[in-house]
Amino acid sequence: MLNFELHLPTHFVFGKGVELETGKKVKELGGSHVLVHYGTGSVVRSGLLNRVVASLKEEGIQVELLGGAIPNPLDTLVYEGIELVRKTGVDFVLGVGGGSAIDSAKAIALGAPYDGDFWDFYSYKVVPQACIPVGVVLTLSGTGSESSNSSVITRSATRVKRGVNVEVQRPVLAIMNPELTYTLPPYQTAAGVTDIMSHILERYFTNTPDVEVTDRLCEGLLLTVIHAAKLAIREPDNYNARAQLMWAGTLAHNNLCGVGRQQDWACHAIEHELSGLYDVAHGAGLAVVTPAWMRYTMHHNTLRFAQLAERVWGCSMNYEHPEYTALEGIIRFEHFLRDIGMPVTLKELGAKAEDIPYLAAHTKMGNAGTHTGYFVPLTPKDVEKVLHLADK
Amino acid sequence: MLNFELHLPTHFVFGKGVELETGKKVKELGGSHVLVHYGTGSVVRSGLLNRVVASLKEEGIQVELLGGAIPNPLDTLVYEGIELVRKTGVDFVLGVGGGSAIDSAKAIALGAPYDGDFWDFYSYKVVPQACIPVGVVLTLSGTGSESSNSSVITRSATRVKRGVNVEVQRPVLAIMNPELTYTLPPYQTAAGVTDIMSHILERYFTNTPDVEVTDRLCEGLLLTVIHAAKLAIREPDNYNARAQLMWAGTLAHNNLCGVGRQQDWACHAIEHELSGLYDVAHGAGLAVVTPAWMRYTMHHNTLRFAQLAERVWGCSMNYEHPEYTALEGIIRFEHFLRDIGMPVTLKELGAKAEDIPYLAAHTKMGNAGTHTGYFVPLTPKDVEKVLHLADK
Repeated sequence: MLNFELHLPTHFVFGKGVELETGKKVKELGGSHVLVHYGTGSVVRSGLLNRVVASLKEEGIQVELLGGAIPNPLDTLVYEGIELVRKTGVDFVLGVGGGSAIDSAKAIALGAPYDGDFWDFYSYKVVPQACIPVGVVLTLSGTGSESSNSSVITRSATRVKRGVNVEVQRPVLAIMNPELTYTLPPYQTAAGVTDIMSHILERYFTNTPDVEVTDRLCEGLLLTVIHAAKLAIREPDNYNARAQLMWAGTLAHNNLCGVGRQQDWACHAIEHELSGLYDVAHGAGLAVVTPAWMRYTMHHNTLRFAQLAERVWGCSMNYEHPEYTALEGIIRFEHFLRDIGMPVTLKELGAKAEDIPYLAAHTKMGNAGTHTGYFVPLTPKDVEKVLHLADK
Repeated sequence: MLNFELHLPTHFVFGKGVELETGKKVKELGGSHVLVHYGTGSVVRSGLLNRVVASLKEEGIQVELLGGAIPNPLDTLVYEGIELVRKTGVDFVLGVGGGSAIDSAKAIALGAPYDGDFWDFYSYKVVPQACIPVGVVLTLSGTGSESSNSSVITRSATRVKRGVNVEVQRPVLAIMNPELTYTLPPYQTAAGVTDIMSHILERYFTNTPDVEVTDRLCEGLLLTVIHAAKLAIREPDNYNARAQLMWAGTLAHNNLCGVGRQQDWACHAIEHELSGLYDVAHGAGLAVVTPAWMRYTMHHNTLRFAQLAERVWGCSMNYEHPEYTALEGIIRFEHFLRDIGMPVTLKELGAKAEDIPYLAAHTKMGNAGTHTGYFVPLTPKDVEKVLHLADK
C-alpha cells in the first residue's frame, strides 16, 4: 500500500425528499447568494428546480439562475457562468442535475476567483488554487461528481474534452434523493451504471501490491451495482435499487476505493475522445472501450483479472489455466453490459473504424506525456490496437 | 435503506513516517497552541512523543504536555486536561496513542469550552454543542476513534463506563503510520482486531431491509481483517498486514458501513460493564460477549447470519437448514478468536459467573430506557442469559 492523504469534505444528505432541505444546508455552510446551475428539460419540468429555489429563498438566500448545461458540458456556458458569478457576487454555486450540470458548476466555481481564462486549468497550464464552495442536488447516478475532485469540460471550438482533478473543487454539499432518478430512461441508467463500474475498475487494475482492503471495497461495490442495475432498469421506481446505485456511485469515485494504490485511467482517456468526437453518452463509450482494454492488457497480470472474475462475476477459479478464468470474467462483463442495453462495439456506438487513428492520436497521454494509463502504459499505437479489438 | 446524513471531516495522512508531518498539518488546520495528550510508557520510550513535539515546534506551535492516559481512560485525567486547556489557552488537542489517549483527548476537547461539569455529557444530562479541534497520532488499530464521533470515559469513583456519540468531536486530523503498531504485543493486536470486527458486526445486524451496499462494505472489511490479523500476529512488523488493519479499523467505525441502517450495539453496551468492572481489554470482552450474543439472537433472522457465514466465513449455504449455516459461521468466528489468542468464555476473561446479575443490572439500556440493542432489543434478563451462554 502506498502512502496517501484523503479528505472528503462533502456533507451528504441522502434519502427521500431531502431536496427540501437544500436551503437549510446551504445556509449552514455559509452560502448567502447562490448560483443555481442546471441542465435542460427535466429538472424544470419535474418541478425540482422550483422546489430547490423555493427552499433557498425560504432561508433568505439570494438566487441567480443559469440553465442550459448539456451532456459533455461546454466551455461557452462556463464562461457565461463565470461572468454571472463575478457580476452578481455569488458565494456558492449549486449544480442541480447529473454530471454535466455538476461539472459545469465546478468549472464556474474554479474559474470565477481566477484572474485569467479558466481554460488554463483544463489545458494544464495552471493548477487551480481556489474554488467557490460547490453544492449539488443530484438527479443521476454515475459520474460520482457529487463528491469527487474532478470535472470534465469540452472545448466547443475543437470538441476537445479535458478533465481536471484538484481537491479544491470537491463539493461541500451533496443532496441525494434516489427518487429523483426514477424518470431516467433505461439507457441513461445503464450508462450511469457503466460509468460507476469504470470508476471502480480504473482503480482496481493496479501494479501496487498489498491493497486488499481497497480491493475488497471495490469488489463489494461492483457486486452491489451489478445486482441493483438490473433491478433499476426493470423497475425504474424501485427505491432500493435506485438508492444502492446512487450511494455506490458516490463511493466509487470519491477515492475511498483508490487510496494507497496506483490507478490506471486509460479507458477514461480513450473514451473522452469517443464522446468528444461523436457526442455519445460517456458510459456507453466506456462500455465499448473497457472490455477491449481488458482483452488487450489481461496478460500483464492474469491473476488480478482472475480474482475479479472469481470474486465479482462468480467464475470458478481455474488453477491450471487462470487465464481462462480471467477471460471468462471479461466475457461475463460484456454479457452484463449487453443485458443492460449498452453497446459493446464501435459499430453499436455509432463510431467509425476509419476514425481509430484520429482517436488514438488525440487520446491524452497523461503518463509522462507519452503513454496513457499506468497498469499497462499504452502508446497511441496501443490505443489503436485496443480500439481495433472493439471493432467487431 | 433509511435516510441519512454523513460528514467525515477528518484529514487522513496515512503511511510510513507520516508522524513527521504532524506540525505542518496541525498548522494548516489552524492549530497554534496544542495540548499533546498521551498515555504511558511506549509513546515516550519509542521516541514518538519527541518526534511529534519536535514536528509541532518546528512550525512555531506552542505545546503543552499531558501524559497518563490509561486503558479505559478515567474522568480524573480529563478534569486535569480541561483545567490545563483553560489555563493555557490551548486551541487544538492532539491525542497520541490508541483509543484511550484519543478518547480522553476528545473528552477534554468537549469539556473545555463547556460551562459546567463535562460528566454531564457522559451521564446524558447535556448534549455537547462545541469542541476544540481534535487531532490524532494513532499507535493502535482497533477503536476507530481516530475518525469516529464517539468517546468512552470511565468514572473512577464508580467504575461506570459511558460513551458519548456526537458529530462535533470527530477528529479533524488523523496521522496514521502503521509502523507505529509494530511493537504492539499479539494480545493487544488481537484485541484491536476484535474491536474492529465488532464495530462492523454491530452495524451488520440490522432490521433495516435493502442495505446491500453497506452489507458488502462490511463483508469486504471483515474479509480483509480476518486475513491481515493472522499475518500481523505472526509477523508483527509486516507493514502490509499492519496497514490493512489500520485503515480497515478506521473505515469500520467512521460509519461508512452504518449509514442508512438501524444499528445494534448491545454487545458494546454489555462489554462496557465487563471492562468497567474487571479492567480487561475492551476487545477481549467483546470476544467473550459477541459469540454468546450471536447464539442468543440468531433465530431472529437466521438468513442474515447465514449470509455472513457464507460470504465471510466461507461456509456452504445449507438451503434446507440455513440455521446450520448460521451456526457454523458463529463457530468459525469463535475458532478465529481463539486462534488469534482471545478469550471466548467468562472464565478465560477472568470474569465471575456470580457477577452476571450485577453486570446485567448495570448494562446501559439505551433503547427506550428499557432495552439494549435494536436487532433484538434485550432486557436485563436477556443480558443475563447472553452472559450465561458465555459461562462455559
